[in-house]
Amino acid sequence: MSPSDLRLDTERTARIGMPEAVLCQFKSVEQCVSAVQGLLAGSDDVVIATRIDATQRQELMALRPEHHDASTMVWRSRDPSGQVAAVVSAGTSDADVASEAALTLAALGHTVIRTADVGVAGVHRLTAALPEFETANAIIAVAGMEGALPTVLAGLVGQPIIAVPTSVGYGSAFEGVTPLLTMMASCAPGIAVVGIDNGYGAACAVHRIFQTRS
Amino acid sequence: MSPSDLRLDTERTARIGMPEAVLCQFKSVEQCVSAVQGLLAGSDDVVIATRIDATQRQELMALRPEHHDASTMVWRSRDPSGQVAAVVSAGTSDADVASEAALTLAALGHTVIRTADVGVAGVHRLTAALPEFETANAIIAVAGMEGALPTVLAGLVGQPIIAVPTSVGYGSAFEGVTPLLTMMASCAPGIAVVGIDNGYGAACAVHRIFQTRS
Amino acid sequence: MSPSDLRLDTERTARIGMPEAVLCQFKSVEQCVSAVQGLLAGSDDVVIATRIDATQRQELMALRPEHHDASTMVWRSRDPSGQVAAVVSAGTSDADVASEAALTLAALGHTVIRTADVGVAGVHRLTAALPEFETANAIIAVAGMEGALPTVLAGLVGQPIIAVPTSVGYGSAFEGVTPLLTMMASCAPGIAVVGIDNGYGAACAVHRIFQTRS
Amino acid sequence: MSPSDLRLDTERTARIGMPEAVLCQFKSVEQCVSAVQGLLAGSDDVVIATRIDATQRQELMALRPEHHDASTMVWRSRDPSGQVAAVVSAGTSDADVASEAALTLAALGHTVIRTADVGVAGVHRLTAALPEFETANAIIAVAGMEGALPTVLAGLVGQPIIAVPTSVGYGSAFEGVTPLLTMMASCAPGIAVVGIDNGYGAACAVHRIFQTRS
Amino acid sequence: MSPSDLRLDTERTARIGMPEAVLCQFKSVEQCVSAVQGLLAGSDDVVIATRIDATQRQELMALRPEHHDASTMVWRSRDPSGQVAAVVSAGTSDADVASEAALTLAALGHTVIRTADVGVAGVHRLTAALPEFETANAIIAVAGMEGALPTVLAGLVGQPIIAVPTSVGYGSAFEGVTPLLTMMASCAPGIAVVGIDNGYGAACAVHRIFQTRS
Amino acid sequence: MSPSDLRLDTERTARIGMPEAVLCQFKSVEQCVSAVQGLLAGSDDVVIATRIDATQRQELMALRPEHHDASTMVWRSRDPSGQVAAVVSAGTSDADVASEAALTLAALGHTVIRTADVGVAGVHRLTAALPEFETANAIIAVAGMEGALPTVLAGLVGQPIIAVPTSVGYGSAFEGVTPLLTMMASCAPGIAVVGIDNGYGAACAVHRIFQTRS
Amino acid sequence: MSPSDLRLDTERTARIGMPEAVLCQFKSVEQCVSAVQGLLAGSDDVVIATRIDATQRQELMALRPEHHDASTMVWRSRDPSGQVAAVVSAGTSDADVASEAALTLAALGHTVIRTADVGVAGVHRLTAALPEFETANAIIAVAGMEGALPTVLAGLVGQPIIAVPTSVGYGSAFEGVTPLLTMMASCAPGIAVVGIDNGYGAACAVHRIFQTRS
Amino acid sequence: MSPSDLRLDTERTARIGMPEAVLCQFKSVEQCVSAVQGLLAGSDDVVIATRIDATQRQELMALRPEHHDASTMVWRSRDPSGQVAAVVSAGTSDADVASEAALTLAALGHTVIRTADVGVAGVHRLTAALPEFETANAIIAVAGMEGALPTVLAGLVGQPIIAVPTSVGYGSAFEGVTPLLTMMASCAPGIAVVGIDNGYGAACAVHRIFQTRS
Repeated sequence: MSPSDLRLDTERTARIGMPEAVLCQFKSVEQCVSAVQGLLAGSDDVVIATRIDATQRQELMALRPEHHDASTMVWRSRDPSGQVAAVVSAGTSDADVASEAALTLAALGHTVIRTADVGVAGVHRLTAALPEFETANAIIAVAGMEGALPTVLAGLVGQPIIAVPTSVGYGSAFEGVTPLLTMMASCAPGIAVVGIDNGYGAACAVHRIFQTRS
Repeated sequence: MSPSDLRLDTERTARIGMPEAVLCQFKSVEQCVSAVQGLLAGSDDVVIATRIDATQRQELMALRPEHHDASTMVWRSRDPSGQVAAVVSAGTSDADVASEAALTLAALGHTVIRTADVGVAGVHRLTAALPEFETANAIIAVAGMEGALPTVLAGLVGQPIIAVPTSVGYGSAFEGVTPLLTMMASCAPGIAVVGIDNGYGAACAVHRIFQTRS
Repeated sequence: MSPSDLRLDTERTARIGMPEAVLCQFKSVEQCVSAVQGLLAGSDDVVIATRIDATQRQELMALRPEHHDASTMVWRSRDPSGQVAAVVSAGTSDADVASEAALTLAALGHTVIRTADVGVAGVHRLTAALPEFETANAIIAVAGMEGALPTVLAGLVGQPIIAVPTSVGYGSAFEGVTPLLTMMASCAPGIAVVGIDNGYGAACAVHRIFQTRS
Repeated sequence: MSPSDLRLDTERTARIGMPEAVLCQFKSVEQCVSAVQGLLAGSDDVVIATRIDATQRQELMALRPEHHDASTMVWRSRDPSGQVAAVVSAGTSDADVASEAALTLAALGHTVIRTADVGVAGVHRLTAALPEFETANAIIAVAGMEGALPTVLAGLVGQPIIAVPTSVGYGSAFEGVTPLLTMMASCAPGIAVVGIDNGYGAACAVHRIFQTRS
Repeated sequence: MSPSDLRLDTERTARIGMPEAVLCQFKSVEQCVSAVQGLLAGSDDVVIATRIDATQRQELMALRPEHHDASTMVWRSRDPSGQVAAVVSAGTSDADVASEAALTLAALGHTVIRTADVGVAGVHRLTAALPEFETANAIIAVAGMEGALPTVLAGLVGQPIIAVPTSVGYGSAFEGVTPLLTMMASCAPGIAVVGIDNGYGAACAVHRIFQTRS
Repeated sequence: MSPSDLRLDTERTARIGMPEAVLCQFKSVEQCVSAVQGLLAGSDDVVIATRIDATQRQELMALRPEHHDASTMVWRSRDPSGQVAAVVSAGTSDADVASEAALTLAALGHTVIRTADVGVAGVHRLTAALPEFETANAIIAVAGMEGALPTVLAGLVGQPIIAVPTSVGYGSAFEGVTPLLTMMASCAPGIAVVGIDNGYGAACAVHRIFQTRS
Repeated sequence: MSPSDLRLDTERTARIGMPEAVLCQFKSVEQCVSAVQGLLAGSDDVVIATRIDATQRQELMALRPEHHDASTMVWRSRDPSGQVAAVVSAGTSDADVASEAALTLAALGHTVIRTADVGVAGVHRLTAALPEFETANAIIAVAGMEGALPTVLAGLVGQPIIAVPTSVGYGSAFEGVTPLLTMMASCAPGIAVVGIDNGYGAACAVHRIFQTRS
Repeated sequence: MSPSDLRLDTERTARIGMPEAVLCQFKSVEQCVSAVQGLLAGSDDVVIATRIDATQRQELMALRPEHHDASTMVWRSRDPSGQVAAVVSAGTSDADVASEAALTLAALGHTVIRTADVGVAGVHRLTAALPEFETANAIIAVAGMEGALPTVLAGLVGQPIIAVPTSVGYGSAFEGVTPLLTMMASCAPGIAVVGIDNGYGAACAVHRIFQTRS
């Protein structure tokens, strides 16, 4: 099957308000480039590529993304929505996943507040940082290891909380399974969880909230 | 420790907009009754009890809940919020979990649309039922077995989707682990998941969205 | 033990209508070459090698396969059977597994229809593509991530469906465990599943159907 | 939700050639009776109920099933298809699951050969029994414990083999997980597997083969 | 084997400072009574029985324990050690496990402070309760569901913390596996964990600390 | 987010008596160096870096650690506490984890006795080595494979025992899961366990004991 | 299928030297009685029934077993073999599994030494008991919880050791999974393991050794 | 810790009849060389090193092993014992594990019969090969994928069977977990199992049988 056979879902924005993204992991460089080009040509909407590795990155940079970090790229941006999302993360090492979420949200037109290093082993850091993001309309909480951040946060604020477990941590974190379970079993009410390391999915969950709002 | 020692979190509503609920599973009848009475006395807000078994039910009915089904009871209701939530479920057997979510939402003042039996083995049932709940501001999707309902739904509509895996199904559903994994790994963007059978948690996740909205 | 000690099952075709295949993963280059040569010499039937890595590939190409892709090679082809199989896959990244199935089926004499990119996050893509493969006598459905494709498909068509979970997807797909469980627990009737990434096994399951048919 | 709200899929036969079945496990007696009555009233096709427990059984017998065993009931039968299926099981304790498969196949019009107690700890029992079912057009192989029966069988015959893991066995069988894994990882080509204890699903998989055959 | 064959480890106190306890779960009533009587006769030390069910309880009460709750009994008490331990628990339902720990500690001569209902969904409850147990020389932290209590606690105080996961919680707590993993993977330094529901083991871990102290 | 954004918890020593450590795994070289420099500048206390890989090591050595081994470095040392800890390990391959524990303890001012190669397959080695560490006030027991060392040790001595499972061993050790489970389920009383390979955590658990002691 | 359809493997003794046993778990009372009667009538060899529950027990006692305990029965005994096996168990609660092994061995003609309560939390009990069974030609070691007994034993003696994990123990023993893993991953050489609670299987493994010996 | 600190168990042969082996995996080259030299110097017995990687191999060859294959080396051999062991393996890819077992057995003085490629997908290959190894006093059965070989074998012969699961196979073999479970749950009596890929352990289990035999 040649890359030209790609069956892109260019009508996705019309249907659900979010474009198809390109998950680069498990794709060849050619498949990634072809998919991005196809989406750029097939619509006027934002194009988002995630999980880009070093090799793919070199080729994709030639397509001139508007914003990018180590493993995420976006082309075009939507007009400002007036909505504000916070991306709060527990440890330094959760930065990549948090950044994937933040770039996706920004491309979709939302303002992003980034608050890092508020792990609950020093719960005062979290309470001290609350004013930074108390104006946010929704919060993405990113944590690896024991994943307790969203639980403590959900007892302090009333906004929607989308929790993202990350695969960071010593052996007993089991590549994200431990924080995933922690977040699913939380004693605090109303935490909703996305898949391990799925910053993009968390941003989409928040976008669904924002686009239904007005 | 006598039941009078309960340290109830009666300030929770002030902090996060939702009251502490009474999870009756694993509690004695006395502990359940005492907790409900304590919350009724300690605030003017809604009181919610979940996972009530047959024995607990008899005693708790004496406290005259305003609404109840087999395993959930609520006392008092908040004023109508003007917000509408849909609770969509895949199979007949998912009804208990869906009902826990619906009663909780209603007690918190939201209008609830219930759509049942739209499992994806007959995807036309789902597409035919879409108009029933297209006015909802958020959707709770309840499914056991293979748990594919939220994935298909998320490709059709743009509202927030909170997915609830249930412990219903043949052996290979592994008491909810299979639909939980399915929902976490979904190829459709923006599905957020709560714990197995956690209808109450899904309702709280939606309530967070609604109370942040205005 | 030297490679010449291989105890090849050259009578397998007489017994079950399918030749022994060479699973190259976990074998040395010498063992692969020796096994293929042994099977070519020991019978007149099709020879199939799967899971070929880059190093093995170079040596095996010298044996001049009749058809091949990145990780599968076949030598010789059976006469056309008049049977038609569809290989339907959900995402771009499932292509390798789908191709292993398609090459095996073709070598065994069957006509193959390939339909890609019909993941259920855009269920209209699947319903739109149905006419492409409605003439098939059996369908192989390949999907990673949440693995919901076979469930939706099984509610739409009445043909035999062999589902193949793939190891593609973010962390919560757990290298194929999630789609495997999804497929085993499906609410749609009559889905039969083969092992993770086992495109060859799916092709054999279809071949069993076809050779018993007349 | 009252039982009258059931959204039965009475068009399923027209779409995929198999009627919706009633999975009684996890349903109340009233829900079971109501579902069976609804399906009897809504079409002329076969009605199948599975996983019936002792309490449900008493009420359902009042609806006069045409055939039944301890946990499965069928109403009406289709005309003979001329197709023959074998249901082969390894141990005495696999009988319930095998019977669920056999009753379903018979209701759908197919002839069923039942061969029991051919576990591979005495492989001569299996080879001796082969003539009993060598005329079958498809084979369902039911096994618990280590689940090796389908693997040995698949090396002996060329027909389609649908394997069903059962939850029978000592602790290390882990309620069906062990035979499920065994069957998925089999070294014999072309075994397709359904969920643990899913005799009904295996029958449907065979029915898909038979109805596509002509 | 008759109960008189029991090989009791009556020298255990001399060796490690703790007597052998009688784990009643999985033992017959006769085995329990015989073991307690044997230990009472074989030494002058404390005798502890845990995991007592309702039937065993009736017979064991006839042996006149000095202290007991629903599932733990102790005979005799050691002289006061002057050491103070806190037993802090997250939810009402963790009371049984916390009580097993508290009774064991008291029997071994230590003063026990019990603080309940300080789950981290209302982190202010925990910080408000800190003065209650700040004089303790060691802390046992008992929690089910997401198990985050020890993590937050370990960021606030410097004493030894022995964490006990309990099997309390909705489906996603997986009978204690989730809080066990959370506690093992904690981002807070120096949390040591005992087995699920093992209140007795936690008390022994604290006793080891206390008896080595002077 | 630039490394200068790090929100270091420099008050941690004041709160819990242990400084924040730098877990280098999953961090870039720049993040590691920046975190160590920040902690060195922000307090006068010990600075500890763990899980250092070869690349990080080169850069971090330029910061002149006071003590180091292959994957752990410490800067500064606290004054001698007068407390003695033993670090006892089962196999040669557990040396790295044991060393992480020993270096951390030494930096915090404690005397460390190292006893290696006392696996329980030759239980006489353990009993013969007991005098080496019988003066210790607490014992860290490090073991991979079947992880039985702490169980046997806990039947011989009365001191606090902190068990550390390691990820060393043949396939059935499952990267530390087997010894972790062994240690949690031990029949010997009072073993407390930290996460897989978490030598640093074990040292902190002992430090909590020592600093509460006087 | 009526019980008279049982396909008993009455030639098994001729083939492998052991008769087919009747695993009563998962069988109806009628199936159990019918199987025992069939085997008694079909050969002159020993008949063994295992996993008998209370209801089955009453009916089976009417068939007058020669030896029996709570859940195992044997009819007839073979002539003395002159071989001696030891059955060594760690805790009181492992007695049932140990007894299943001992009764099976005795029925097959072997002398059995039973040594109980030698758990490794008091390793001196084990070393003190060694003379009891040092004349045995093979040893069955039965242990639940952390399952360390076979590991310590294998470092002390040179005989064949068949280890049996049991499902006894607190939550973290996971119904036998923990001791199973411990025994498989043991650092002591030459331990061979049978399934959880499989005392019968362990006896057969020893019988294979004894019957091959002369 | 310098390599000279190794606490070698040079008395192991006197105690249990087998020398300590050097498991090279997870050890540095220096540790491996030092351990082998220590054992060569410390006794006159056989020295065995397993799991040798390519780098270690180069250095260890300088110590002139008497026999070796890719990952196992032995120095010295014991006098012939007169005992015969068969090492039977299912697939070509199981050769490494089988070879580790065979070299260990040979070094300990036993005669070894190697039979390969008798996987049960062609059960006739196994029955045809039976005469090759029917004189063996014990059989090691090595299999990956579904691991059914020992089950079929145990129904055909009466000798001791030590089963070794290998980590070979497609995704659903889960790196040896599937064959491990299959072997533990086998319906054939008397199979004893060692850890995944543990050829050395299987050889030791057989050696225990042989040395107890006289």
